[in-house]
Amino acid sequence: MKKSPLAPDNFPQMPIIEGVKLATSGCGIKYKNRTDLMLAELAEGTVVAGVFTKSKTASANIVWGKEALKKGTARVLIVNSGNANAFNGKAGEESVARIVDSCASLWNCDKNEIYPCATGVIGEPLPDSLITDSLTKLKNETNDNIWLEAASAIMTTDTFPKGSTRTSNINGVEVKINGIAKGSGMIAPDMATMLSYIFTDANISQDALQNIFSEAVDKSFNSITVDSDTSTSDTGLLFATGKAGNDIIDDENSPHLLDFKEKLSELLLELAHLIVKDGEGASKFITITVTGAESDKAAKKIALSIANSPLVKTAIAGEDANWGRIVMAVGKSGEEADRDKMSVSIGGIVIAKDGQLNPAYKESEVTKHMQGQNIDIATDVGIGKGSATVWTCDLTHEYITINADYRS
Amino acid sequence: MKKSPLAPDNFPQMPIIEGVKLATSGCGIKYKNRTDLMLAELAEGTVVAGVFTKSKTASANIVWGKEALKKGTARVLIVNSGNANAFNGKAGEESVARIVDSCASLWNCDKNEIYPCATGVIGEPLPDSLITDSLTKLKNETNDNIWLEAASAIMTTDTFPKGSTRTSNINGVEVKINGIAKGSGMIAPDMATMLSYIFTDANISQDALQNIFSEAVDKSFNSITVDSDTSTSDTGLLFATGKAGNDIIDDENSPHLLDFKEKLSELLLELAHLIVKDGEGASKFITITVTGAESDKAAKKIALSIANSPLVKTAIAGEDANWGRIVMAVGKSGEEADRDKMSVSIGGIVIAKDGQLNPAYKESEVTKHMQGQNIDIATDVGIGKGSATVWTCDLTHEYITINADYRS
Repeated sequence: MKKSPLAPDNFPQMPIIEGVKLATSGCGIKYKNRTDLMLAELAEGTVVAGVFTKSKTASANIVWGKEALKKGTARVLIVNSGNANAFNGKAGEESVARIVDSCASLWNCDKNEIYPCATGVIGEPLPDSLITDSLTKLKNETNDNIWLEAASAIMTTDTFPKGSTRTSNINGVEVKINGIAKGSGMIAPDMATMLSYIFTDANISQDALQNIFSEAVDKSFNSITVDSDTSTSDTGLLFATGKAGNDIIDDENSPHLLDFKEKLSELLLELAHLIVKDGEGASKFITITVTGAESDKAAKKIALSIANSPLVKTAIAGEDANWGRIVMAVGKSGEEADRDKMSVSIGGIVIAKDGQLNPAYKESEVTKHMQGQNIDIATDVGIGKGSATVWTCDLTHEYITINADYRS
Repeated sequence: MKKSPLAPDNFPQMPIIEGVKLATSGCGIKYKNRTDLMLAELAEGTVVAGVFTKSKTASANIVWGKEALKKGTARVLIVNSGNANAFNGKAGEESVARIVDSCASLWNCDKNEIYPCATGVIGEPLPDSLITDSLTKLKNETNDNIWLEAASAIMTTDTFPKGSTRTSNINGVEVKINGIAKGSGMIAPDMATMLSYIFTDANISQDALQNIFSEAVDKSFNSITVDSDTSTSDTGLLFATGKAGNDIIDDENSPHLLDFKEKLSELLLELAHLIVKDGEGASKFITITVTGAESDKAAKKIALSIANSPLVKTAIAGEDANWGRIVMAVGKSGEEADRDKMSVSIGGIVIAKDGQLNPAYKESEVTKHMQGQNIDIATDVGIGKGSATVWTCDLTHEYITINADYRS
C-alpha cells in the first residue's frame, strides 16, 4: 500500500512515560512479515478512562471493555490487528475470556484490569491461541521507548503509523502525554474512534479523567469522518499512571487542569487529523466549518452531512469548485437553514451570499485553492449562533480500489 | 456516456392518454445537440397530486410547485434539464414567475395550474428566456404519442430514458397509467424523487389521488438510494385527466380503486428500479430486505444504512461476499438489533445466524451469486416484526469518474 500523500514527514519523537512499558510481536493472525500484537503494561495504580463505539453490533472486546471500565484501573492493554473478533457470538466472548484469563494470571492482577482490543475483519473466528501463546514473550520483552513500533503493530489498512505527544504542567509539576492511533476506513466515530490509546503520567482521579476525556473526544475523534461507516471496534483509552508525582486532582474543573486539558485536546485533535489524512484513498484534507446554525449540535450535523456527501467528496477529488453540492448537502441534513441568507466560501473566498452567487466571485480564484492539499469549506446557514468544525478527506478512485477487494 | 449495463433492452410501448399532449425541444440551456425541454399540456379539469423534496435548500421551482398544488388542478407541465434553478435567490423566483406568466398567458389559464420543473446544476442563474421563447413552438407542436422523446428530454446524467405503463380497471372502465422519470446521481429521495411524471386518464378526486400517490411513493421512490445525496429538485407529479369516463371516485379507500392502486404501485416501483439501474457507475442492482426490526420504520432505517454504506457498496462492486460490512452497517444505523440473534443471507444462502458464522456456510456458493447483476441481501435483526425492502446499486470507479468532473 502506497503511503498517503497527506502523511506527515516523520513519526514524532515521543518521551518515556513512567509506568508504561510496551512490547510488540508478529503472531500471524492475518498479516505476514509484520507485527500484529501490541502490549502495554501499566504500573499498579494506573487509572483508565474510556470511550467506545455505540454500534449495536459491537465486538466482544467492546462488551468486555465497557464492563471492565467500571473498575477504573488498568494493568494490561493487549491489542491485535487483523481480526476484529466482531460478530463471532459466544465464540468471540470465549476468545476474550481466554485472553483475559491468561493475562490476569501472568500479571497476577484482577481480570477487570485487562483491556483486550481487536481490529480487522469482522465475522471470522479469532485464533486467540496465537495471542495467548505470545503473552510470556511479550511480557519478557517490554521496553519503555518503542512508541513507533507500538503504533505500527496496531495498523490495518493504515499507510503510516500515527502518534502525537505533548508536555503539560499540573500545579507546577511537568506531566507527559503520548498517544497512538490507528484508522483509515470505516471511520465515522460515534463516541470514540477506531483504536486510540493515550498514556500519561499525570495523577488524576478516574472520574475526573473520564469526564475530561469524553469532552475532548467530542471535538476531535467524534468530529471526523472518512466514509460515514462506523466501526464495530471503536475504542479510545486514556491511561494515567500517576507517576509524575503531582498531588492527585479529583475535580475535573480544577484550574490546575486547564493546561492539561488544552494539551490533551491538542493531542487528540492531531491524532484525529492524522486518521483523516490516512483516509482510504485520501488526496485532500478537508476542513468544514458551519456557522449560523440553530445550535452547535445542529451545526455539527450539517457539517457531517457535507463531510459525508459522496458528491461533495468526489467534486473535491476532481478539484472542481462545485459549490452547489455543498448547498445540496446543507439542505438534506434535516437541520434548519435559511436558503435566502446562506453563504458559502471555499478557501476563504465568498462564492455565494444571501442565498445566491456572489456577483464578485471569480471561479479562477478558488481553482488554485482546490488544487492544493488542504481544502477549507465554510458555510453560514443564517439561522442562529450554533457552530462546529469537522474534518474529512476526499473520495477517490483509490478508495474504491482499496475497498472493492480488501478482505480477499 | 456509456449506457448502464443494467439498462432494460427497450423503452416500453406506451399508449396515448386522452387529455395529455406532449412536446419536446432543444433550447440549449446547457446541453448541445439534444432536447432539454419537455412540455405536457393537460386537458381542462385535470387534477394533480404531488410530492416534493424535503430539502431545506429546495429550488424556486419546488417552492412554486408546493404552493400551486393547493389549487389541485393542472394545465401545463414544463420541465427543463441542464439547470436546477436552485440557490439562485430572488433571481430564481423571478425566473419561475416569468415562465409561469408566459404559460398562463399562452394557455389562458390560472397561474396555479402551471408546473415549471428544473433539473441540473445548482447555483447557476437559469437563462429562462431560452424557455419562454420556446413556448409557442412547443404549444404548436404537441403530440400525444412521443413518450420516449419526453422521457429523453428530461435526462441529465441518465444513460437511458425511463418509462413504465400499466392498464387498470376502475369500476368496469379501463384506465391507463403512463409514467416517465429521470435520475441517476444525487438519489436518496426524502419524500419524492428526482423528477417523475405520471399521467392517467382515471377520474379520481384530487384528495383521493394525493393520498394514493403519497402512500405508493413511500414504498417505491422513497425506498431507493444511489449515493445518499438528496436532490434540491425532487419532484413527483401524478396528473389525472379524468377522460377515461369512469364515475368519479372521491374516497381513496373505495374498493373500486384497489386495482388502480396496485397498478400504480407497480409502475412507480418499476420507475424507481430503473433509476437505481441507472445509478451513476452502477454495475449491480441490489435488493436489501430487513426483517425482525422493532418497526417497519426501524427496518427501513437499517436497510438504508446498509444501502448507503460505501464499504458495503464497494465490496459488492468487487464481487466480495464481505458480509461483516453488512453487520457493521446494521450496527451503525442507530436502531435496535440483537447481535446474538442476527442472521445474514446473500442470494438466499444463510451466511450467519444466531450472531455468528453458519458452520455449514461455503463461501464458494455465494461467490457465484456475487458475480451476477442482481444481488439479494437479507438480514433478520432478531428484535420484532418490522420489515422493509430498499433498493440500491454498487459504488464503482465509474461513480468517481462521473462525479469528480461532472460540472465542468
